[in-house]
Amino acid sequence: MKRVMLTVAYDGTNYRGWQLQPKGETIERVLNCCLSELTGEEIMVIGASRTDAGVHAKGNIAVFDTESRIPGDKFSYALNQRLPEDIRICGSREVSLDFHPRHCKSRKTYEYRIYCAPFPMPVKRLYSYFTYVPLNVDLMSQAAAYLVGEHDFKSFCSVQTQALTTVRQVDAVQVYTEGEEIVIRVSGRGFLYNMVRIMAGTLMEVGRGRMEPEKVKEILADRDRQTAGPTAPACGLTLIGYEFLTEEGND
Amino acid sequence: MKRVMLTVAYDGTNYRGWQLQPKGETIERVLNCCLSELTGEEIMVIGASRTDAGVHAKGNIAVFDTESRIPGDKFSYALNQRLPEDIRICGSREVSLDFHPRHCKSRKTYEYRIYCAPFPMPVKRLYSYFTYVPLNVDLMSQAAAYLVGEHDFKSFCSVQTQALTTVRQVDAVQVYTEGEEIVIRVSGRGFLYNMVRIMAGTLMEVGRGRMEPEKVKEILADRDRQTAGPTAPACGLTLIGYEFLTEEGND
Repeated sequence: MKRVMLTVAYDGTNYRGWQLQPKGETIERVLNCCLSELTGEEIMVIGASRTDAGVHAKGNIAVFDTESRIPGDKFSYALNQRLPEDIRICGSREVSLDFHPRHCKSRKTYEYRIYCAPFPMPVKRLYSYFTYVPLNVDLMSQAAAYLVGEHDFKSFCSVQTQALTTVRQVDAVQVYTEGEEIVIRVSGRGFLYNMVRIMAGTLMEVGRGRMEPEKVKEILADRDRQTAGPTAPACGLTLIGYEFLTEEGND
Repeated sequence: MKRVMLTVAYDGTNYRGWQLQPKGETIERVLNCCLSELTGEEIMVIGASRTDAGVHAKGNIAVFDTESRIPGDKFSYALNQRLPEDIRICGSREVSLDFHPRHCKSRKTYEYRIYCAPFPMPVKRLYSYFTYVPLNVDLMSQAAAYLVGEHDFKSFCSVQTQALTTVRQVDAVQVYTEGEEIVIRVSGRGFLYNMVRIMAGTLMEVGRGRMEPEKVKEILADRDRQTAGPTAPACGLTLIGYEFLTEEGND
């Protein structure tokens, strides 16, 4: 038996997120089906990040165990021939049998994209959040700086969370303009449920002048979801990728 | 009666192009329907560029005549409430009654986007052409320079053309990297049928080393569609916008 790691990219528009749901198609279900067909075994993948409905990914991670004789690095090609166009495997390789993508030290990076203009742009509608309210990127950057470091992010966590602790380490939050879009790029050692989307919603409140950048310090101290901004819509969010901080996960 | 000009943006993925077709939805038909509903008149728009099936636009132009009392600059808002999400009006205003978007001097700009990587990226699949073959951007730029100026572009024109002359003025062709994509940006006074897509297909032949940059000079001289590269797929092409060179079309 061997364990294989997949790097998975997807357009989340037409899926109910990563995780198996009683109703509706999910990335996890499509991967399980294609892998089971390919190997003749009953395969169940374990995902590193269970992204929400409508969220996109350029580099989510999944692992599975198999007796198949297909070499680990060939699964990407074999799977891409079976997967729908909106899911692609961008790399695959064998990892050690004790590698678990959620129980090992890792850093992940997300991007939240905002298209800010007088009118929406159809070709951007699926992958960025549209607002016609002008946003001040400098103020958003100032506010973002308060989010970096180890903090209790309880205010930036959906009340539905089951997390034991709401303390998390955020390594970087950058806000910048890229072409016609504003990008919020966040890296950290793990995120609470909806954390990046609430961070984006809060930074947008600052950007439109409804909140001072310093207010973010107070929001963190309050430990109260009500004081932070709204949860920004899913379509603007993309999981960029993982960096594994243990030896096993990296090449 | 007044004539109103619309700036139209669309995601061409789900349309059979601009122009009315016996079968299948087109941008022109959707605009005619929404405008007729809005005004209670039977409205027929005239488009500046009849883009092909699957081609996108950030700034195509349409004009129509109406007796409506809606002010010219308010049509954008009224229409956007009726249009599907993949078509947006990014501006509207009254123009003089003799303004015709195809019979006036204008410069238009197109972008052709190529995503060049070992594996396709789902979030890019609708708006760029994917190739895993590495492309040399410097060689493509050298080749592009030969296309600038007034030339007979017969080799860069679909044989189905009905154009009286195949001489066209190309003002600029730039090839550059933008994030993860290669962009071919072309501006000119008018283009032949499929001209930008054949230019893109030819520049890609150069980029992958199958053709010397100087070969483009010969292709132009040959005046033979067979000698140029293939027509690059529609999804990579976006009509960026128009600049009207007569006073009427501009603000």
